[in-house]
Amino acid sequence: MAARLSSRREKFRGLSPAEFFYKNREIAGFSNPVRALYQTIRELVENALDATETHGILPEIKVNIKPLENDHVFVRVEDNGIGIPPTEIPIVFGRVFYGSKYQLRQTRGVFGLGVKMAVLYAQITTGKPLKVVSTQNKSKYEYEFEIQIDIAHNMPIIKNMAVREKTFPHGTIVELITEGNWTLARRKIESYLERTAMIAPYATIVLEELDSKKEYRRVSKVLPPPPETGKYHPKGADLELVKNMIRRSKKSLTLTKFLMENFDGVGKKTAENFLTWAGFDSETKLSKLTLQDIEILVRKMKEYEKWRRPKPITLSPVGESLLKQGVKRILNPSYVTAVTRPPSSFGGNPFIVEVALAYGGDVPQSDTPTLYRFANRIPLLYDEGADVSRKVISSIDWSIYKVKFPAPLAIVTHICSTKIPFKGVGKEAIAEVPEVEKELEIAIREAARRLRRHLSKLEKLYEVKRRKTIIGKYIPEVSRALAYVSNLDEKVLAKKLQTMLEKDIKTRGVINVPAA
Amino acid sequence: MAARLSSRREKFRGLSPAEFFYKNREIAGFSNPVRALYQTIRELVENALDATETHGILPEIKVNIKPLENDHVFVRVEDNGIGIPPTEIPIVFGRVFYGSKYQLRQTRGVFGLGVKMAVLYAQITTGKPLKVVSTQNKSKYEYEFEIQIDIAHNMPIIKNMAVREKTFPHGTIVELITEGNWTLARRKIESYLERTAMIAPYATIVLEELDSKKEYRRVSKVLPPPPETGKYHPKGADLELVKNMIRRSKKSLTLTKFLMENFDGVGKKTAENFLTWAGFDSETKLSKLTLQDIEILVRKMKEYEKWRRPKPITLSPVGESLLKQGVKRILNPSYVTAVTRPPSSFGGNPFIVEVALAYGGDVPQSDTPTLYRFANRIPLLYDEGADVSRKVISSIDWSIYKVKFPAPLAIVTHICSTKIPFKGVGKEAIAEVPEVEKELEIAIREAARRLRRHLSKLEKLYEVKRRKTIIGKYIPEVSRALAYVSNLDEKVLAKKLQTMLEKDIKTRGVINVPAA
Repeated sequence: MAARLSSRREKFRGLSPAEFFYKNREIAGFSNPVRALYQTIRELVENALDATETHGILPEIKVNIKPLENDHVFVRVEDNGIGIPPTEIPIVFGRVFYGSKYQLRQTRGVFGLGVKMAVLYAQITTGKPLKVVSTQNKSKYEYEFEIQIDIAHNMPIIKNMAVREKTFPHGTIVELITEGNWTLARRKIESYLERTAMIAPYATIVLEELDSKKEYRRVSKVLPPPPETGKYHPKGADLELVKNMIRRSKKSLTLTKFLMENFDGVGKKTAENFLTWAGFDSETKLSKLTLQDIEILVRKMKEYEKWRRPKPITLSPVGESLLKQGVKRILNPSYVTAVTRPPSSFGGNPFIVEVALAYGGDVPQSDTPTLYRFANRIPLLYDEGADVSRKVISSIDWSIYKVKFPAPLAIVTHICSTKIPFKGVGKEAIAEVPEVEKELEIAIREAARRLRRHLSKLEKLYEVKRRKTIIGKYIPEVSRALAYVSNLDEKVLAKKLQTMLEKDIKTRGVINVPAA
Repeated sequence: MAARLSSRREKFRGLSPAEFFYKNREIAGFSNPVRALYQTIRELVENALDATETHGILPEIKVNIKPLENDHVFVRVEDNGIGIPPTEIPIVFGRVFYGSKYQLRQTRGVFGLGVKMAVLYAQITTGKPLKVVSTQNKSKYEYEFEIQIDIAHNMPIIKNMAVREKTFPHGTIVELITEGNWTLARRKIESYLERTAMIAPYATIVLEELDSKKEYRRVSKVLPPPPETGKYHPKGADLELVKNMIRRSKKSLTLTKFLMENFDGVGKKTAENFLTWAGFDSETKLSKLTLQDIEILVRKMKEYEKWRRPKPITLSPVGESLLKQGVKRILNPSYVTAVTRPPSSFGGNPFIVEVALAYGGDVPQSDTPTLYRFANRIPLLYDEGADVSRKVISSIDWSIYKVKFPAPLAIVTHICSTKIPFKGVGKEAIAEVPEVEKELEIAIREAARRLRRHLSKLEKLYEVKRRKTIIGKYIPEVSRALAYVSNLDEKVLAKKLQTMLEKDIKTRGVINVPAA
């Protein structure tokens, strides 16, 4: 055994982040040419939306796709966003783990990984660089770069660069040639864009293919208030974070001041109450804290039950009214209702759940509710079976809401948070965090109760109509008999009876199907 | 809008890999204290097994767990593996994306990420460093380190270091204090170790808790042949890989030689045939290739259908005999069979599927087959619903194999490959790669056919027994009648008839239940 042991030497080596994701691209969703094309377009569109709506700009997004020979596909995504500073462009597109997404604020992108994966995938399949043209509002110029990634060093390679006078006010255009199967990916990509149009009714999205053009014109000019950058909530703190904050603070700071300056929703009173509860002197200076003190402090911060709820300023829910407009735009149901829940939190992360429920009209009949999932306004199309929303919907007995399957019922769920508990970097399924699960259930049941009221009204209406038809049948006979007895005109009597019947129905029931 | 735009400036920044995974730890399975403890133990045990079985050593693994106060848990994992060179220890435990797993060979670990996540999680929850003691066979000394991670720089921090004369021949001991809920994680962790014992019947695994001890003694001293390090298969090549290979090669090399030296299963003839088919001159020197030539070369390599199948030397399946022993050890069924399929491949990655099927005995009754999933000998316990094995099993009509549910049927699936298509870095579910799906189905159906034969034999046996009982009933009456007619002794006749009956049964049916 000894001989064997010494003859085998382990080889140790390091990988750059770019190399790691290049080798394991399927965990970021780039598992095959179909999925990779879908993921590429998705990442570019999400960046385009983040560059617009997060900054108060009504999005105008143009997606252009041209299948080339040898399974190569040309992709171009153009936005009217804030643009990217020219000094940042190469790194933002050419370095894994670099970007503007690492802040405490709701954005579609979260990992700062997606567009680099698109660059990497193009690079290893077609060998072609990504082309970017970008300009900012204040600038007179637009900047063009051709970028690849030095995988071993995780640094951008600038293949080409140009500066010229700007030709559009602000925004970014990204072009690449990647491997992909447009025929197979097309349906998924169209459905992705359609769902994006559903959750963002204020966005105009145009998809141009070789010979066809699909346009989702905005149906609203109202933009939900953009999210702001926030502070950490004390419940979400960990040892490393607090140690870092202390390192960056003045050592003469008191514990009270330290908490007030660094954490969300902590005023003087809250800080003092907490410190007393946790057994700390609120006047202790940071310089006096031992590592063990900090360890206890952090543990107590997690245990404390009386913090204020995380402030939702970092979040940007769509809102009930816009959500309904979005659903109508795409599903054209006969009934729609929407519920935006008040902010809640898990582990210090604020989140808001929104649900819309659409019934009838063009909603297709199905044996279970058709589910449209969104997280921070991203449509989630894969791995529905592993998602918390599907779990909640399956646990509900829909017959108590008067829904009998097959039914034309669609449910839209939207979770927004500074920290979406995705199950993977491919951003497809949301984990079963109990707090999120509970909020989802409350929202869905509230919407379902409204649906039940609507369905009850419909039932009553049909009942009244049915009675009207039955009673109506006897009117000629009754009026003939009355005419005979009273010596009045039979036709006049019939007309009067008909009017009485209509009146009775109007006061008892509803004639028009309610909108919501 | 202009004012708004200029008032909002995007902040760009980079993250170190350690910082990325610290912020997004749930994608590596560290989503909460229960799951994190499970994941920690799992990563340590997998490293321990990789350090032993991969190098021809019969594994002896000791896991020690002590719940402490404040939800802290002490974890210690000891192995008799090859040990780690002292110069590598700090980086292997203290740097994300560094390790010995980045080779073309089947190992349990693949991402080089797990143990660093365990260190990070301990660091941010309890603030305690990881302790390692390791010694190699050739060394006279053992080395002890206490390690944390400098998250911002993704570098190890050595808190302490000691060298002393060795106290054990070779192996590694890892200790850490992390946050975790042992009460809630216990069942999952025990079940993980039990399943590990099932797939590795040659391993002795001991779990010591506060007051109890569980020991899985090895039931076999046979170790499957360890995997070797291999070359890439031409079908799995990508542009970046080939460009790198060319960069590292002598520029005077011909294309034929280049292919022969760098790829799996490519001899002179194969290389020449391919190059002719692809339209290249086999004598072209590397120095003459343009970027476009390389692009075409790679595309043709992927398209070519006549490569030899990838060599499975990089793989280490358990084998039918060991697999059956493992299953018997844990499930104690009345019938077990195992199928190891010949090597196959997807996208240039060799893989082997193994399946065992256990029936009756202590296998619990269930409405669907109970599934035990393994990938490169790792038990997969989460996300079964998203796994390819469950999909294949659900698609099979079990009644054609004479299985009527509820039934005491368990199915073990094992996929080994240099590249397991995991759906995430948490290593829990395997994606639906068509080639893998097909092999799984063939293996399961083969095992199921054997089960059907077994069940048929059982049926026949019971039928024979039943007939024997019925016929037996008439023997006294028949022998009485015969005695009356023949004037022979009734008892003698009865005995003879009984013997005839037994004989008849023996030639027609089976008496003993067959083992496999």
